[in-house]
Amino acid sequence: MQRLLGQCTACCFQRCVGMDSFNALDVITYQMDLDLGTEYNQRFRKYLAHVQEENLVVDGAMTDPKGDRRLSPSQQADPDLYLRIVDENEDGLFIRGAKLHQTGALSAHEILVMPTRSLREEDRDYAVACAVPADAEGIVYVYGRQASDTRKLEGGKIDVGNYQFGGHEAMIIFQDVFVPWEWVFMCREIHYAGGLVELFAAHHRASYGGCKVGVGDVLIGAVQAVAKAQGTEKASHIKDKIVEMVHLNETLFACGLATSYEGVRAQSGTYMIDYLLANITKLNVTRFPYEIARIAQDIAGGLMVTMPSEQDFNHPEVGPLLEKYLVGSEDFTTEHRQRLLRLIENITLGAGGVGYLVESLHGAGSPMAQRIMITRLAELDAKEENALKIAGLLEEPSAQAGD
Amino acid sequence: MQRLLGQCTACCFQRCVGMDSFNALDVITYQMDLDLGTEYNQRFRKYLAHVQEENLVVDGAMTDPKGDRRLSPSQQADPDLYLRIVDENEDGLFIRGAKLHQTGALSAHEILVMPTRSLREEDRDYAVACAVPADAEGIVYVYGRQASDTRKLEGGKIDVGNYQFGGHEAMIIFQDVFVPWEWVFMCREIHYAGGLVELFAAHHRASYGGCKVGVGDVLIGAVQAVAKAQGTEKASHIKDKIVEMVHLNETLFACGLATSYEGVRAQSGTYMIDYLLANITKLNVTRFPYEIARIAQDIAGGLMVTMPSEQDFNHPEVGPLLEKYLVGSEDFTTEHRQRLLRLIENITLGAGGVGYLVESLHGAGSPMAQRIMITRLAELDAKEENALKIAGLLEEPSAQAGD
Amino acid sequence: MQRLLGQCTACCFQRCVGMDSFNALDVITYQMDLDLGTEYNQRFRKYLAHVQEENLVVDGAMTDPKGDRRLSPSQQADPDLYLRIVDENEDGLFIRGAKLHQTGALSAHEILVMPTRSLREEDRDYAVACAVPADAEGIVYVYGRQASDTRKLEGGKIDVGNYQFGGHEAMIIFQDVFVPWEWVFMCREIHYAGGLVELFAAHHRASYGGCKVGVGDVLIGAVQAVAKAQGTEKASHIKDKIVEMVHLNETLFACGLATSYEGVRAQSGTYMIDYLLANITKLNVTRFPYEIARIAQDIAGGLMVTMPSEQDFNHPEVGPLLEKYLVGSEDFTTEHRQRLLRLIENITLGAGGVGYLVESLHGAGSPMAQRIMITRLAELDAKEENALKIAGLLEEPSAQAGD
Amino acid sequence: MQRLLGQCTACCFQRCVGMDSFNALDVITYQMDLDLGTEYNQRFRKYLAHVQEENLVVDGAMTDPKGDRRLSPSQQADPDLYLRIVDENEDGLFIRGAKLHQTGALSAHEILVMPTRSLREEDRDYAVACAVPADAEGIVYVYGRQASDTRKLEGGKIDVGNYQFGGHEAMIIFQDVFVPWEWVFMCREIHYAGGLVELFAAHHRASYGGCKVGVGDVLIGAVQAVAKAQGTEKASHIKDKIVEMVHLNETLFACGLATSYEGVRAQSGTYMIDYLLANITKLNVTRFPYEIARIAQDIAGGLMVTMPSEQDFNHPEVGPLLEKYLVGSEDFTTEHRQRLLRLIENITLGAGGVGYLVESLHGAGSPMAQRIMITRLAELDAKEENALKIAGLLEEPSAQAGD
Repeated sequence: MQRLLGQCTACCFQRCVGMDSFNALDVITYQMDLDLGTEYNQRFRKYLAHVQEENLVVDGAMTDPKGDRRLSPSQQADPDLYLRIVDENEDGLFIRGAKLHQTGALSAHEILVMPTRSLREEDRDYAVACAVPADAEGIVYVYGRQASDTRKLEGGKIDVGNYQFGGHEAMIIFQDVFVPWEWVFMCREIHYAGGLVELFAAHHRASYGGCKVGVGDVLIGAVQAVAKAQGTEKASHIKDKIVEMVHLNETLFACGLATSYEGVRAQSGTYMIDYLLANITKLNVTRFPYEIARIAQDIAGGLMVTMPSEQDFNHPEVGPLLEKYLVGSEDFTTEHRQRLLRLIENITLGAGGVGYLVESLHGAGSPMAQRIMITRLAELDAKEENALKIAGLLEEPSAQAGD
Repeated sequence: MQRLLGQCTACCFQRCVGMDSFNALDVITYQMDLDLGTEYNQRFRKYLAHVQEENLVVDGAMTDPKGDRRLSPSQQADPDLYLRIVDENEDGLFIRGAKLHQTGALSAHEILVMPTRSLREEDRDYAVACAVPADAEGIVYVYGRQASDTRKLEGGKIDVGNYQFGGHEAMIIFQDVFVPWEWVFMCREIHYAGGLVELFAAHHRASYGGCKVGVGDVLIGAVQAVAKAQGTEKASHIKDKIVEMVHLNETLFACGLATSYEGVRAQSGTYMIDYLLANITKLNVTRFPYEIARIAQDIAGGLMVTMPSEQDFNHPEVGPLLEKYLVGSEDFTTEHRQRLLRLIENITLGAGGVGYLVESLHGAGSPMAQRIMITRLAELDAKEENALKIAGLLEEPSAQAGD
Repeated sequence: MQRLLGQCTACCFQRCVGMDSFNALDVITYQMDLDLGTEYNQRFRKYLAHVQEENLVVDGAMTDPKGDRRLSPSQQADPDLYLRIVDENEDGLFIRGAKLHQTGALSAHEILVMPTRSLREEDRDYAVACAVPADAEGIVYVYGRQASDTRKLEGGKIDVGNYQFGGHEAMIIFQDVFVPWEWVFMCREIHYAGGLVELFAAHHRASYGGCKVGVGDVLIGAVQAVAKAQGTEKASHIKDKIVEMVHLNETLFACGLATSYEGVRAQSGTYMIDYLLANITKLNVTRFPYEIARIAQDIAGGLMVTMPSEQDFNHPEVGPLLEKYLVGSEDFTTEHRQRLLRLIENITLGAGGVGYLVESLHGAGSPMAQRIMITRLAELDAKEENALKIAGLLEEPSAQAGD
Repeated sequence: MQRLLGQCTACCFQRCVGMDSFNALDVITYQMDLDLGTEYNQRFRKYLAHVQEENLVVDGAMTDPKGDRRLSPSQQADPDLYLRIVDENEDGLFIRGAKLHQTGALSAHEILVMPTRSLREEDRDYAVACAVPADAEGIVYVYGRQASDTRKLEGGKIDVGNYQFGGHEAMIIFQDVFVPWEWVFMCREIHYAGGLVELFAAHHRASYGGCKVGVGDVLIGAVQAVAKAQGTEKASHIKDKIVEMVHLNETLFACGLATSYEGVRAQSGTYMIDYLLANITKLNVTRFPYEIARIAQDIAGGLMVTMPSEQDFNHPEVGPLLEKYLVGSEDFTTEHRQRLLRLIENITLGAGGVGYLVESLHGAGSPMAQRIMITRLAELDAKEENALKIAGLLEEPSAQAGD
């Protein structure tokens, strides 16, 4: 589904983060109820039914500003640098803080708030998961800038690159926002915060093995089309570069598929993807789209970044000159080439590049976060023991005192 | 299973090629019987039962010498450069030719012969698939040399690197070998040769996403162990390099898993792996083991290629000097380090490197063979059409005459 | 000098193309005069003195639109798709055509026109090199769009990323522009067109081993500064990534230096850089800046593409909220971080990325152009003969009939 | 010179280490004499004249066993784990210890001993540089094993790959070896040990930008020749891969050239190469030969590791079968192909691979040693300051308190 949506939009379509939150919350709230006798899962399932019935878009909001990263939430100079419970009454909670990098937040009907890290006893007020409507009182959105963002405001359909779809990022500020108990799914249970973060992150990392592959499909298709329009599609080096793009793109997909197929059923009934492979998938996603984009720019050629504006093409005097001099293969109009080059520019060096490149790098955790998880999950001790066996060292106790 | 066997042996264990042949032959012979009314599948199933009951190792033999590659089999100066039917009688066929690069041939009980390429009408005698016992009359084996191969004959257990297991390659020459009809599974049906080759190749390419991962596990374990023995295992750059090895290795595994999971059931009941992902898997296998091996050599250090021989360590005068000067961490004996370094040398620059590196590159087809298949399977037309849609070009018939 | 200017501007500073033209024209016009008895070098030297005395910026203009690339200039449907002489009289020439991808054209005082490819007899009118003032009658400039270009018009100093400097690209259209004989340096001497193109291209390829290194220095410095502002500069993986950036950047510089040092004096007295190493330099430039940019984005973090606009930071209500939540290390203001992230965005995903990335790929010829030159210059025959000697094959005449 | 010798031998020719020692010792002994009034440079120049007059091969011996790397020389459990002065008298010194990884030691007439690290007061006896004849009393050599080493003993000229040349590694043990004062160039001057090590290492790192390039030339030539013998030399992907090999190889050369050209004259009159570029050169050498070797194996094909032995080709019955089936292009004998494949095997997966690959990785210091030096030499502070200037942050003192 994610690959398909990526193909249909050529950008971040802003649905996975909510769905990844559902999977994680369902598993963890079920576990909390089992352990603690709470009713969080029941509440969450009710919320989920509500979302499904109303066909709501949900933004899963995790990343806090974090301030000085060496300090825990409660140690920060400003206690609001991690979102927290600031008050409560019979009806519900009040939360304050901010969530950064909220992809697609302004397209969402609902915000699903989660903690951003594992917590200790002194951080109890920071252990909160809950849902609020996107237009709840006290919420402020600050829209993030993207490369070439104002092209969306220029009115044309060509220079914007992708005139139908686009992603955005926003910062959400919660100024003592009220949440009714009904939509609270974690309240000060610090021991479950870390597990929720890890499960959400794993699901979200796996998602990138679908959505970015779909965007990659569009980029490959655009490059193939522009090669035709420029008469280079039969050159062996062009064909070879397109194969390389496909290869990298499908490797990402294979990783995503394996992560899901290796999933296991949690007690709540929801499936959890494979933690190790989810991190493997995401680490590849931090690299391959950059190489795919570089190859796309190679095939597209220099005109992608020197081409005059849409308005110049429409200009009564300049337009005909551009038509005259930028003509390519006779089977294609100049606008054909123009639109394809602007689409490639969008994905590789424009607003779309935010989603296809930088979000691939940092979304769901930066590369180092994946490397840390891979170290933990790699079972290095078992690998080492097996190697010692092959090397004939396990029968020889002198070799490894104390093993 | 393949990853496990790779872990248990740290080398090519020489079973996949037969099993990949079974999968391919079962599907293709079933199709032949459906189309042509032959009995090949029935024969093949009987053969398979025989193999299973007797627990036989089967070598799948495909690669012909090929002579001048621009010429078809029947056009070669020497007609034997592709294996062919040279005679037949009431009891069976006689075959002549050779099969190259037969990994593990001398450990097999049976040889399963298949054609090596798609064939045309004039090449009818080259369309033959059949089974012969490994010791059938008229078969000559010529053992291939490997790096450091004679260390296996030196008598020690250390310098050989992997003293229990190892692979080998052989050339098999068929000098008019008799095959009873019972074990003939294709006989001049040229239209099925290409399909058999492709299906076998796809299965075999997928297999590399298992076996090489197992060998990679051993290499990672050995490197982790040697880092401990050399006191470097806690250095951040060493840990980072080991994560990279794991990452590359698990990416191969993810590709292999996805290839199988995406498999579809053929009419014969046997599952066929996904063709595209099989080629993606193999193309990664032509690259990542080389990088994994390079990192392993980085961590192992220079002593791996300057270390004196096992006999020198056992020498009454020299031995104690080596013990004195090659001492590492006090928790480990010199022999501990010595054995691990020899194992890493074996896999990355010795007899094991033939299987882990060069076979990864050329086994089941060289990289270019995978690239050609990927081009064919990539559905570039659909990708292009989708990109045109995103670019707003599909509504504009002038852009693409005839689309 | 080029590295220094790159450091001073963090963008393409638009001087090398003219200087590379000078070097190429001086050598080729001298050769023409020697061979043909013309006075081109004398004219050119006079022109050069003029440029130096007046301290003029010169745009070297080579790339024609080319139309259908399989056809020569005179075979094109529209003869103007390569710039050509359309008329002449006692006083001079008239030229018509266009030059694409003219980096920095609008900052130049002069345009130095050169042919774009080797030419044949029927293409005589296309063999023209000459100089015209940038504001000569009949010249039309069409400004090319760049990522985030309109940020330059927004009025602020932060979101633009690099508020002092920037590059641009323009298309120059020559509508029967007059050139006095005094400034004509080639006129229909087709046999010298190819040599001029190759020499100019080689010099221009070498230039990239200087200017892009300077921009790389700025990027490395910005990343180091932002790591400090975010408190991550001491993490081992951050330090390791910065070393990698330096390593790649200095490799480019080493290639550029070697290209110049290996230069040889032409008969005109001007030095010609080493052709092979110039192409090696440029081929590395088509790759390393992309990897350097990817690492920069890795270290910069996601805020680079989600950060609110300068106006939001200045907004009376929103500004204080952003200050509150985007605070980093206490030693640095929020604006410090903001400016550095915008600079990194500029170079890696904004207007500066056009120069640092796509121009690195296609400027002075796309990667395939360098590969073709490398093949020609690699002396493969000598390498082959030497290998045969090492292999003991040169004494055996049967091995190599006719060599 | 180094590239030429690499081309002539296709292996490590074992001369650079001595010459790099000369350069380093000349500079440092001159400095010592200036600072301390010693006569070391005079002695060293006399020694150098002796070496030149007699045309002696000198082994520069630096690497000590090091034992537990966290401890300094004098802190080791066994004080001999770093080479040291154990006694002295009127005539000279006595040294004890070992030097590991001594490439080409057994081909040398002389050994030039140097300390392996910077030293502190308590390590005074370890600060010793001196020369001894290779056959001095008390020296024990222990020959290191290499992949496929015993092929050199088999008697044939083909399977050995490179029948004329080859490298070797040895461990040298000094059992209280006497050194006359005349040949002592450093004696307990601890403050000069670190400088000597760094200068030697820098020269030695730069050397790899020559010698390995020469071996790369042979590999490229062999691959080009084998592609011809196999009829694939005109395939576009083969040509492209050979260009890539050339590109990587020439990049190494460019780095080596730049390192020398940027050299500066020391007070002694000897030129010192550029420290930063020397480390850049070597870091590339730790990577590119591996990729060049992988490409070589790709083009060579699988036969390189499955080909029968030389004896089989000479066998009266088997030989003719091999000639029949391993025939390639009719312009070349089977032996032609056989010799070339064995040469490629030698360099990429045999005895030659020790020099071309692992020595490229670890010789003159492992990659991490280069990275540390690059960090030190990269002038990150200056880069940072320049970036702050571009970002408009230097005029704003509030941004950077105390800078």
